[in-house]
Amino acid sequence: MSDVVSPLAPDAFPTLPPIAGVQLATHAAGIKYEGRADLFLASVAEGTVVAGTFTRSLCPSAPVDWCRRVLSDGNRTARAVVCNSGNANAFTGQAGSTAAALTAQTIADALGASPDEIFLASTGVIGETLPEEAMREGLPKLAEKLGTSSPDGWEQSAAAICTTDTYAKGAYRRIDGCAAHIVGIAKGSGMIAPDMATMLAFVFTDAAVEPGLLQRCLDKSVERSFNRITVDSDTSTSDTVLLFATGEQIDDDFTTDDDPRLPALQQALDTVLLDLAHQIVRDGEGATKFVEVTVTGAADDTAAKTIGLAIANSPLVKTAIAAEDANWGRIVMAVGKSGEAADRDKLEIWIGPEQVTAQGMVFPGYSEERATAHLQQNEVKISVDVGVGGGHAKVWTCDLTHGYIEINAGYRS
Amino acid sequence: MSDVVSPLAPDAFPTLPPIAGVQLATHAAGIKYEGRADLFLASVAEGTVVAGTFTRSLCPSAPVDWCRRVLSDGNRTARAVVCNSGNANAFTGQAGSTAAALTAQTIADALGASPDEIFLASTGVIGETLPEEAMREGLPKLAEKLGTSSPDGWEQSAAAICTTDTYAKGAYRRIDGCAAHIVGIAKGSGMIAPDMATMLAFVFTDAAVEPGLLQRCLDKSVERSFNRITVDSDTSTSDTVLLFATGEQIDDDFTTDDDPRLPALQQALDTVLLDLAHQIVRDGEGATKFVEVTVTGAADDTAAKTIGLAIANSPLVKTAIAAEDANWGRIVMAVGKSGEAADRDKLEIWIGPEQVTAQGMVFPGYSEERATAHLQQNEVKISVDVGVGGGHAKVWTCDLTHGYIEINAGYRS
Repeated sequence: MSDVVSPLAPDAFPTLPPIAGVQLATHAAGIKYEGRADLFLASVAEGTVVAGTFTRSLCPSAPVDWCRRVLSDGNRTARAVVCNSGNANAFTGQAGSTAAALTAQTIADALGASPDEIFLASTGVIGETLPEEAMREGLPKLAEKLGTSSPDGWEQSAAAICTTDTYAKGAYRRIDGCAAHIVGIAKGSGMIAPDMATMLAFVFTDAAVEPGLLQRCLDKSVERSFNRITVDSDTSTSDTVLLFATGEQIDDDFTTDDDPRLPALQQALDTVLLDLAHQIVRDGEGATKFVEVTVTGAADDTAAKTIGLAIANSPLVKTAIAAEDANWGRIVMAVGKSGEAADRDKLEIWIGPEQVTAQGMVFPGYSEERATAHLQQNEVKISVDVGVGGGHAKVWTCDLTHGYIEINAGYRS
Repeated sequence: MSDVVSPLAPDAFPTLPPIAGVQLATHAAGIKYEGRADLFLASVAEGTVVAGTFTRSLCPSAPVDWCRRVLSDGNRTARAVVCNSGNANAFTGQAGSTAAALTAQTIADALGASPDEIFLASTGVIGETLPEEAMREGLPKLAEKLGTSSPDGWEQSAAAICTTDTYAKGAYRRIDGCAAHIVGIAKGSGMIAPDMATMLAFVFTDAAVEPGLLQRCLDKSVERSFNRITVDSDTSTSDTVLLFATGEQIDDDFTTDDDPRLPALQQALDTVLLDLAHQIVRDGEGATKFVEVTVTGAADDTAAKTIGLAIANSPLVKTAIAAEDANWGRIVMAVGKSGEAADRDKLEIWIGPEQVTAQGMVFPGYSEERATAHLQQNEVKISVDVGVGGGHAKVWTCDLTHGYIEINAGYRS
């Protein structure tokens, strides 16, 4: 992790409760970093159900290939997830697949499980083979260290999966109306920093959920959280979100889409994933502003999201926000380039509470001074109504600063 | 124009020959800049045929609306193009349309033409109304200054349309096998800098070309040139390319697609537009490297272009090039995110003459030292073969540096 912590970081790592049926371990295997843990293992109770979503990259990493293959074979039960930092095991050819299989086999042997119950993730440099010796020695030691999922254990786990992150990321929510919990940890700094690749999240609940239902809940939450953040528009080879339901806290399974408790489960999951997603944006490379973009009046919700991401991905909008410059012409530009229907002559833009435009031109009472005052805060809100329909969406990003160039134009050492 | 000239600028403005039937004028009207020309007028002989392509932005400027309306009314003859710099006349509501109509009427009156024969462009700040007084006083003086299209006249014209450009841009080509010429001038610094909006090109030939044929030739050349460059992926409200064919040099019209002279015309036009497009990239905001991306082995040419632009638009690829860092994992990432078919296990990447990857992993003989040596030059070549078909494309971009942030995070003053 970086020595300089993001100015947008939370005050402290949250206190995450134990999740029944989950045990944690970390270990310093010396894969790339000196003097810090770089292996993370969570074992989960027998019968744990798993769901996953992965990068859309057509050049995915070997661990992504592994997890996809296991899930597409219909295997929806898990015994563990293991993750290393410092090496993405991406674009490593046959050696990469072999290393992934070896990792799964080693952990499966230690736990008395099948390799197809072991889920994998790797994050770090692309194109370098995983150091076999370090993995071969480190993995059994990692497995020996498994212990209860304590608050300290969660924090150490969240730290072990970091690369260029400036702080460890965790989130927690109790499922309203039942005794179960959801805990998640994540890494990511820059939506995407593919040579430090990249966004990972591991989420655990001690509720019991039927596999298909668990996957649907996860897909919905990811669409509302991780799919609505951007730092630099680049997509990694390794993005992975895994959700494990141990069922160790409550016996009464969630099995159907009309379970009256389901909205509470979905809401808790949404909250945890959105919290983690926001923490990733707040750790965006070089970020000094956390930016929420709200789009209303679009043709539909999908169009609203596209317009929101056009604004949130625009280097010109993001550099203007970095400079605390109320350069709203760039927001007009981004709406125009999104390709989605927008009525230029009804377009309304707000910077924070300040209305900037109306009816295709600057709003009569617009005060650049007030807009600038809003931009001088750490938390910036941009709202746009494009005047054609009822679609709406929120997306989140950070500003684009010299810090981003500094981090990414630096050598890989 | 900026005081500091791009390190990638040509040594000098080229010597552009007169084009028969074209007269030029520039004037300092004080629209925004002090002590420099900010109005440009080219009058063209009666009977001149015009073709145009425009921004795909859904929030286009008033001059773009004007030109589109004139052309879609079926008017394919022109008498003049007039352009101001310092103000984009974009997002200015009814006042913007009124200012555009007034500009066309004033120039039409001076030339004894119809307003629908006057083509318009504006480039500069978005959202501010064109200063009526400066335009009302300046336009008649501009028209009075019309004189032959001399080499000096071309250079002054190219300078008058600049905003944040660091040098004036012109290009010239004789049409092989006939006595006619093509001359073009352009502005643009940053593919897009929408508050200094943005890419304009005015191109003139003294050949005679049938209107539909002229438009088809222009569409083809734009697709091969301006549509294949990117500085920052942002799309302006004002992009305009206008091509005028006076027919004053040769009487024998180009009228059909099977005219044996047509390939020479197309090639000359391609050359002029590609030259101007490259000059815009070389003046990219903060650029220190000119980058050519070649994609082969794609499903088709369109897929190849999409992959090329995914690489050329990636902030992570562009910051790595700025740092002269052979961080090829970022190229893998960009190919993967393009959404186009690519065979990870056949992907070949070259940095200059150095082969980096083969068969889904690093190439056995790859030398990072040699790849770095190539990146230390001003002109960088990245080649990618994605191993699925025969589609190929070239696109051009520049690196992403602190200079880009410096320019775009600065205030608008």
